[in-house]
This record gives sequence, structure tokens and C-alpha cells, in this order.
Amino acid sequence: MVIENTLVKTRHVLGIDAGGTKTRALLADETGRVLGSALGGGANLKTHGELEVEKVLHAVAEEAEAQAGARADAVALGIAGADRPDDHAVLRAILKRIGFKSRVVVTNDARVAFVAGSERRVGLALVCGTGSIAWGRNARGEIARSGGWGWHLGDEGSGFWIGMRAMREVMRASDGRGPATLLDRPLFEHFGIERLEQILHAVYDGDFPRHHIAKFASRVEQAALSGDAVARDILQAAATELTLAARSVIVRLRLEESAYDVVLSGGTFRAIPTLVQKVEESLATPPAHVALLEDEPAMG
Amino acid sequence: MVIENTLVKTRHVLGIDAGGTKTRALLADETGRVLGSALGGGANLKTHGELEVEKVLHAVAEEAEAQAGARADAVALGIAGADRPDDHAVLRAILKRIGFKSRVVVTNDARVAFVAGSERRVGLALVCGTGSIAWGRNARGEIARSGGWGWHLGDEGSGFWIGMRAMREVMRASDGRGPATLLDRPLFEHFGIERLEQILHAVYDGDFPRHHIAKFASRVEQAALSGDAVARDILQAAATELTLAARSVIVRLRLEESAYDVVLSGGTFRAIPTLVQKVEESLATPPAHVALLEDEPAMG
Repeated sequence: MVIENTLVKTRHVLGIDAGGTKTRALLADETGRVLGSALGGGANLKTHGELEVEKVLHAVAEEAEAQAGARADAVALGIAGADRPDDHAVLRAILKRIGFKSRVVVTNDARVAFVAGSERRVGLALVCGTGSIAWGRNARGEIARSGGWGWHLGDEGSGFWIGMRAMREVMRASDGRGPATLLDRPLFEHFGIERLEQILHAVYDGDFPRHHIAKFASRVEQAALSGDAVARDILQAAATELTLAARSVIVRLRLEESAYDVVLSGGTFRAIPTLVQKVEESLATPPAHVALLEDEPAMG
Repeated sequence: MVIENTLVKTRHVLGIDAGGTKTRALLADETGRVLGSALGGGANLKTHGELEVEKVLHAVAEEAEAQAGARADAVALGIAGADRPDDHAVLRAILKRIGFKSRVVVTNDARVAFVAGSERRVGLALVCGTGSIAWGRNARGEIARSGGWGWHLGDEGSGFWIGMRAMREVMRASDGRGPATLLDRPLFEHFGIERLEQILHAVYDGDFPRHHIAKFASRVEQAALSGDAVARDILQAAATELTLAARSVIVRLRLEESAYDVVLSGGTFRAIPTLVQKVEESLATPPAHVALLEDEPAMG
């Protein structure tokens, strides 16, 4: 008689943290020791599409396993743009095709960040990378999310949102529809152009450079620090949007009834200290404990 | 008419008005009598790409000529997203491939609307369709434009802009990040969905339904007229943006030194009387004469 015990049989776990810009995989043994890691491109189900996501997940899983010299017995996937039942089914099918037939946990990237960053297990993660989302859990086990609707419908306050808004402000200034800004020079440099009109080719010809636009966000911070009012306003607006997403989760979960964690995570937060500072200031009313996640969320 | 001086020998002229959503061609004889007309899909060089633009222009030109039973000796093309030298060269090459080797006038759609709608030949056209742009000319022959940077970088106040903003407000309301709105029902109907999450598939799977989103703008007006404050604010913001584009042209061309025309043109203006009214109110300070262009701009 064969008795299956999941805990005994599972020796290696693959944790994958898939975001809009990059995907990180870590393969660990049952003691949590990391044996292999791999880095791949962005894999957001909503915006990259199923085929691209499968390609990226397959590549990072294979590389992490090759490095570790071991096959994963289970996989935990945290992925942007996938916290609805339909998406989970799609992702399970992808993981099955890759070779993970069972022992699969799929969740959104904010939840992975939360688990990685909160020992209290009560509170929320606020992710600001290429996209943005807030995801929280209270002591009663209820969960709530806010934002995370992707680059067309939401992602307010994200790196992409900041970069896009900054580009639009440069256009507005050039037309006389908006205030003057120092952002034009950084824009020219970032996109390697010499005249403003050339930005049209950079944006409309070929693939829309969404991640490159998200990376422009750190130049917006530089301009803000140099005293540019337009750049400062954009970062303030981003902080307001991110705070709003967090607040709506805090209210719905009634988190302020007791102590809770706020885990800040994502590439844009790591790239823009000003943004972290502003968001920390507006969210750090006791009983909240706000901290920037320094570890890779894949550790969660 | 734009081509009056260049075309002494011309007997049949093809006028093409290419916008983001549709392209209209009219073939007229030298007395201005329309002999043939044709309607095709959207043809914006920035957003549809060269190949698609060529396909659409070829189709409408052939159909208008077939209807008229005559070949055009000259063509005047007014097209969205093409008022820069590079774009003109591309469009001339396209028209050459189609068979128009000389006697070609290429200009942006706002200029065509202006010529069609202004007898004074001094003032500006403000176009609000899928996209938006202001284009003006003063008595000294100087020209200026504002907006028209396409759907990623601008088009503030356009049908697409209104539709997109309305969709985002529905998402914000559902998260508790924004005020409640009546726009959710119209959104469900317009996109044929039953649950809000399904909008993600409508937007992110397959081709981005840009024109369908632009058409959602007229539902925003219905909601505003039913008393929805969110919808009303969106239309007010659109009117403010459009007015801003017009004002920046007025200021740069010093149009207020004497009488001038403001020609309002484009499908969104025609679909949303509220928007026309708001923009007329804010721009109709004498000496401006504001009027909505009722004719097809291709008549210009």
C-alpha cells in the first residue's frame, strides 16, 4: 500500500515571483536553503499574454532547477495580474504544461510580498513596480485588494504611470498647454532622441516600450530633487494614488482595530526613495508598521 | 480649398479625410460637384501603421473613383497624426504607390476641417474624435498646433480619453478608491460583459478596442445627463482640456487681435452635444465665432 504524504515527499520547492518587468525564481530545499535561482523577463498574464508567460516561466524554472541540480516537487507562483479564478485556471494549465502537475500554489505578487514581509501575517502589501496593487489580510482571514487593473485600466502610482504622466507633461509644456518643466532633457536622454517629435516614433512604432517608460520614473525623481515643480507634483500624485489603494484595503478589512504591517514592495519603490518616504509618512499612523521589503519576494 | 492654386489643369479631385475611426473620400469635379464617395476604416499613421493606412486609402480611393466613373487628377489628403515632415514623406510615398504620382496635398485633419469650416481663413479648428488636436492660422499666415500627440501621449479630451477615463473611474469605484458612479451598468452593456472582471479580457486579450472605447464616450454623456457626478466631472475635464488646446493656439497666434473662426469638428463633438456646448461657452468670447462643422471635412 502506498501512502502519500505531501510533506514527506516534497523536498524541493520552486518559488517564482513574476512581475511586469522581471521574473525571479528561487529553488529551495525543505530547510529553506536556496539551491538555484534564475531571472527572466516580465510575465504579467494580463499584459504579456499566455504564450509569453509560459515561455518566461518555463525558462526560469528550467534554469533554477539546472543550477540546483534538482527537480522541484512543488511550485509557488506569485504573479502580477492574476488574482481572479479565471486567471488561476490559466496559470495552472501553464504550469501543468511546463511539468508541474500537482502541488501548485498560484497567487498574486502582492500576496507573495506580504507573506515575505509580514511576520504578523495581518496587514497589507503595497506593490509599486511597473504596475501597482494593494493586497491585504486581516486577523479573521478576510482578504481584500485594490488597484492592480493593469496599465490600461489602472496601475495608478506605478512606475509606468509615473513615466507616462511625465511624458505627457513634456508634450503639454511644448504646446503651451501645461507649465514649463525640466523633464524634457531627461526624456531626450532616456529615449535617445534629439527632437521632441522623435518621441512619437519611440512610442508608436514597433512594440510599445512599457518597461522603458516605467524606468523613466527614476529620472522623474531626479528632476523633482533638482527642484522641478512638475516632476514633484507627479511624484506627489503617485504617492496619493498608492496611499489611496492601501487605505481602501485598510478600511475594508478594518485593519486599524489592531496592529498591522504595511509591506512596501516593487522595483519602483526600490528605485525612488522619495516615493517610499511619502507613502510611509501617510500610512505610518499607529497601529501600522510600515517597512520596505528588501528581500526578493520569491523568498516568501 | 487647400489645393486651389496648385491645380489649374485638374478636372477631378479626390478629397480624403482620414481619422482615427473612419476615412471618408469624396471625388468631385472642378465645379465642386461630388461624383463619388467612399467610407473606410480608421487611418491614423501613428496608431494604425503604414501598411494599414495604405490599405484603407487605396480602398476608399478606388471605390470613390469607381462610383464616379472617373480617375482623380489630384488628391488632397487630410489625416490624423500627420503634420510633421517625416509623416508627410511617408504619406506621399503611400499615395505614389496607390497611383497618385503628383498633385498631392497632405495635411492634418484639423487643417482640412478648418478650411472646410472657416470662410474667414483666420482662426482654428478644434477636432475631437477618437483623438484630439487644435490647429490654427492667423492673418499673417502663421500656423500653430496643440495636442494631437496620439492616444498614448495625449489626445486629452478626445472620445478615447473620455471613454478610458470613464472605465478607470468604474474600476476606482469598485475598489473603494473613487466615488460611486452609475457608469458601471453602461460599461457592462457597452462591452457585453456581466461581471466587472470580464472587462480585463475585453481590454487586454486580443486587439486593444480603442475605437470601441472612444464610442463609450456617448454613454458617459447619458450618465451625466442622468445626474451621475463622476460622468459630469469627466465631461467637464474633457471640455477644459479641449479649451486649453484651443487657447494655446489662440495665444501663440495672437488671434484675439481681430475676428477669427473656431471650427469644431470630429465624431465625438457630433455625438456629445454637451461637450460642444461647454467648449462653445468657454471659447465664444468675441471676436471669436465658434461653429460646429456639420459637413464632412472631406468637402474642404
